[in-house]
Amino acid sequence: MGEKTVRLVLEYDGSRYFGWQRQREEPTIQGVLEEAIYRITGERSSLIASGRTDAGVHALHQVCHFRTSSETAPEALKRGLNALTPHNILVKDVRQAPHDFHARYSARSKTYEYRVLNRPDPDVFVRAYVWHVPHGLDLGAMESCMDILPGRHDFTSFRSSGSTNVNPVREMMRSELHRSDPHRLVFVFEADGFLRHMVRNIVGTIVEVGRGKFSFDDFVRILEAGDRRLAGTKAPPQGLFLTTVKYE
Amino acid sequence: MGEKTVRLVLEYDGSRYFGWQRQREEPTIQGVLEEAIYRITGERSSLIASGRTDAGVHALHQVCHFRTSSETAPEALKRGLNALTPHNILVKDVRQAPHDFHARYSARSKTYEYRVLNRPDPDVFVRAYVWHVPHGLDLGAMESCMDILPGRHDFTSFRSSGSTNVNPVREMMRSELHRSDPHRLVFVFEADGFLRHMVRNIVGTIVEVGRGKFSFDDFVRILEAGDRRLAGTKAPPQGLFLTTVKYE
Repeated sequence: MGEKTVRLVLEYDGSRYFGWQRQREEPTIQGVLEEAIYRITGERSSLIASGRTDAGVHALHQVCHFRTSSETAPEALKRGLNALTPHNILVKDVRQAPHDFHARYSARSKTYEYRVLNRPDPDVFVRAYVWHVPHGLDLGAMESCMDILPGRHDFTSFRSSGSTNVNPVREMMRSELHRSDPHRLVFVFEADGFLRHMVRNIVGTIVEVGRGKFSFDDFVRILEAGDRRLAGTKAPPQGLFLTTVKYE
Repeated sequence: MGEKTVRLVLEYDGSRYFGWQRQREEPTIQGVLEEAIYRITGERSSLIASGRTDAGVHALHQVCHFRTSSETAPEALKRGLNALTPHNILVKDVRQAPHDFHARYSARSKTYEYRVLNRPDPDVFVRAYVWHVPHGLDLGAMESCMDILPGRHDFTSFRSSGSTNVNPVREMMRSELHRSDPHRLVFVFEADGFLRHMVRNIVGTIVEVGRGKFSFDDFVRILEAGDRRLAGTKAPPQGLFLTTVKYE
């Protein structure tokens, strides 16, 4: 009986979790799911995600995998996991993957969306899912910033201050700013990888361009400088959604 | 200094409230707002709504009024109420109304929406705002039921079992079933008034028609019978939204 690799697709509301990564005392997505896997398979498995989302960040489509010698069928595993996890986590798909599939290393790109509500009044129904920016914003200037992001860049200026020593160069494949209604902005970023807090630092800085605190030229200089003290304030977590992970 | 009548427009997420009506021990929309009004004006005022929403029911546009001798300007009152109430209540508008304006008796019609998510999987982001119906539904049969509702009817079959002795005849001006995406249904009802639990009983019964438990002919008979033991199971509160109140 060899081990097999099981691939999961998840949707989750990150509002009440301390992020993806297992912690001793606090509820996390990984912690809740590993515990449910253990109750079904009787084995302690490590669940590896395409990327670790931070506290308050959501996923419409997160991919992860674990290895197990359990013979539980994928459909039964899906039903069991959904029965054993809270309603803010949904296991959308469970299937056996090629043995060498790795949710993080096999990923070719990930896509994040960042949602902003831009009007004086908040919206009581999406408080946990948007950043409410009541100020007027210069969308043209913000779009200009988004337009220079595709390509290969050193994103040091937008990494988290606590980042460990990883390569800060990433390939941005797509960066778009949509208006889903007159008051709702959606930033979309697709890249081969993201540094910690990278999307939130980029969005926070571009919103400061929209408010006139920085110019477009300032934004170009911040990106090129590779100095994380220059960027604007990080956008809050609740507007951020992991929306797609693509594999070979 | 005579009393004046102040008219408010509210949006609220009813998830964490025991409905509109003030209760001694439990949080309610009316209770929270009357307390905030008292803190601003120093007067105990009764806040009267166009209608009392039940526990877990939401409002995109609820109209209410109170009488006061306070000289606080409407804009200051709006800011103060929003500062003093939790984030799940938004005061969208405050203005002085004609002295005889009454949020309930002056209303010509109210509109409710009821939202259903119709697919096997739930949606973790709207758990508190839809009724998740995983079964296949016959939309044609459901639309036929909605089509016979406009007009003047005795809605006794769809009133709450605990209803007090009010006139059960209501004029339904509009009843529509929309599909906002392939898996999301929205029932819209506009009437000159609604009996307690009327929308939830109608929607619950029509969903049973959609599932084949009742036929369209059964639905016609239930409506005409004026017997509240015949209708289907009441739909849950979280899919219901008060969306508009119209005045002369």
